[in-house]
Amino acid sequence: MTARTTAKPGKIRHETASLATVARETGVSVATVSRIVNGKSGRASSETVARVAEAIERLGYRPNPIGRALRRRASRVVAMLSPNLDNPAMAAIAVSTEAALRDAGYVMILCDTHDRPELQDDYLLAMRDQLVAGYIMVSAVRSQGLEQALGRGDPIVFVARRNPLGGGAFVGIDDRGAGADAADFMLARGIERPAVLMAAQNISSTAERAAGFIERLVARGVPADAIRRASAPGLSHIEIGYAAAQALVRDGGWPQGALCVSDLIAYGAYRLAAESGVAIPRDCMLVGVDGNAINNWIAPWLTSIRIPYEIFGRHVLEQLRLQWSGAATSEIHVPHEPLAAKP
Amino acid sequence: MTARTTAKPGKIRHETASLATVARETGVSVATVSRIVNGKSGRASSETVARVAEAIERLGYRPNPIGRALRRRASRVVAMLSPNLDNPAMAAIAVSTEAALRDAGYVMILCDTHDRPELQDDYLLAMRDQLVAGYIMVSAVRSQGLEQALGRGDPIVFVARRNPLGGGAFVGIDDRGAGADAADFMLARGIERPAVLMAAQNISSTAERAAGFIERLVARGVPADAIRRASAPGLSHIEIGYAAAQALVRDGGWPQGALCVSDLIAYGAYRLAAESGVAIPRDCMLVGVDGNAINNWIAPWLTSIRIPYEIFGRHVLEQLRLQWSGAATSEIHVPHEPLAAKP
Repeated sequence: MTARTTAKPGKIRHETASLATVARETGVSVATVSRIVNGKSGRASSETVARVAEAIERLGYRPNPIGRALRRRASRVVAMLSPNLDNPAMAAIAVSTEAALRDAGYVMILCDTHDRPELQDDYLLAMRDQLVAGYIMVSAVRSQGLEQALGRGDPIVFVARRNPLGGGAFVGIDDRGAGADAADFMLARGIERPAVLMAAQNISSTAERAAGFIERLVARGVPADAIRRASAPGLSHIEIGYAAAQALVRDGGWPQGALCVSDLIAYGAYRLAAESGVAIPRDCMLVGVDGNAINNWIAPWLTSIRIPYEIFGRHVLEQLRLQWSGAATSEIHVPHEPLAAKP
Repeated sequence: MTARTTAKPGKIRHETASLATVARETGVSVATVSRIVNGKSGRASSETVARVAEAIERLGYRPNPIGRALRRRASRVVAMLSPNLDNPAMAAIAVSTEAALRDAGYVMILCDTHDRPELQDDYLLAMRDQLVAGYIMVSAVRSQGLEQALGRGDPIVFVARRNPLGGGAFVGIDDRGAGADAADFMLARGIERPAVLMAAQNISSTAERAAGFIERLVARGVPADAIRRASAPGLSHIEIGYAAAQALVRDGGWPQGALCVSDLIAYGAYRLAAESGVAIPRDCMLVGVDGNAINNWIAPWLTSIRIPYEIFGRHVLEQLRLQWSGAATSEIHVPHEPLAAKP
């Protein structure tokens, strides 16, 4: 009995004996054959190994599914692509997701894309070579590689920032709602003309926070043209915060209060305040979004809408599992914490 | 002509045709054969593919080196195992190393070991399955898996904390020297009885900072028993800082100044000071070690010995390359920056 490949010019046919054929012929289990094929003869006797090896040869079985072996080998590995490892919020997302995946038997590997499309693509390619089981795209940017991965139907979960190409699984907060809450909070504290500090780069999450903030202020009677907005270009939110605050102050002095669309932006604004002798929050209330753990230690001056990043991980895992099982994914909005007045 | 395997019970021999044999027989290049074997027939004509496939069959060539394929595939991937992704110093090391590796054509993947031996071993195993080209162990702990990896001669570079099992490539600072510099700095500022806040867990880097600090103070005439030391157990340096400061203050009030063996420890101590109405640095000068970038933004009260983590990456890469080429590794002490007085 033989199952050799018959190759004719222009046409390749592989009539390959299966693992099951080898197992049947040798009287051992498929699992044992599989282990031997994969070099893990482990508990099998050397006689069994030899018998299996002989049958593999005789039947023409080829461990041709290198790809399958690779995929199986890597199927417990999930890649997270994140824009900035040194942003505490990104670190919190990574820590939470790593823990949830690990508890479920997966291994998370983390790549720093620096918020740059070409690096995002480099890492998407490299992780594809590693045959990962899925991708977690934290604050992804539009890129060709992302488009291709989506086109292939690779399992992908977007976190914090929605899929820049639309659709897909998402885990984040209701950014618009968070902005609206900040507006209510400031109005309740008697700040009638709050400002907003944001990045110039138009990305879904922080832009929606600003939009929700402004909408709510307008809905509650603040004239739209009385809401001062300042932004600055760049990728570093902390530097954006400083520059945007400079622009705001240059343009009409310090406001009574300002929404900073991320905690890092608030840190940047704080430095300008400290340099200018402006006391935060006495002279100007800064409201951030993120609620970084470090605030409790060294930024007690900051009121921040806390995003419970520690529970993001389990939602990300769930969205991956849905894709692995072929089920539909969804957009998960994790509730942000209500703002409480600082003592 | 045939090169079939001859298997006898108890003995397996593989007389395998090489890629070169197949290439010679078919008149195409080894590279083309290799691409076809790996399923990337790409630019080869279907006739060539068929001819190669036929020769592979006829000669009994087996793409048996699955391992080799995997290794080649993964040889551009390096794993960093780091204890705490949410420690800014660890993030700075990760960012710097990722950039240096990427510039050199490597991909860095990052795993969070949470400073726990069993997780370190989980990730060492998982990364071995990914067939990485090397390991970067940031603040590694003693573990069985580490011992095994060292025993196998895997390329490993230790960063920040020396190999807990001794020897090996290392990139870090002269921790003892940094402690001594902190002592000189405080004495020069008229702080005659500085204290030291540290972790209870005895790890090389921070313990050496404390030792260097105390040694220098004693050498300069401070009685050893006048140097107050406080420590606290746990893994979170920020919490350790708070608890150690509590212990210190309970034991004899706030000192004029204290070395905090990491910036996170200083952040913890700062919170206690803020809660207690103690002004930093006016009432108590805190000197940290790390020089986290965030200090310039929101912790201007902290004097910190800056470690130039941004150049760690290139030293780590160099130490990996030495191991890949079979050369001897070394301990690299990156100079820390001298302390300058705050304005």
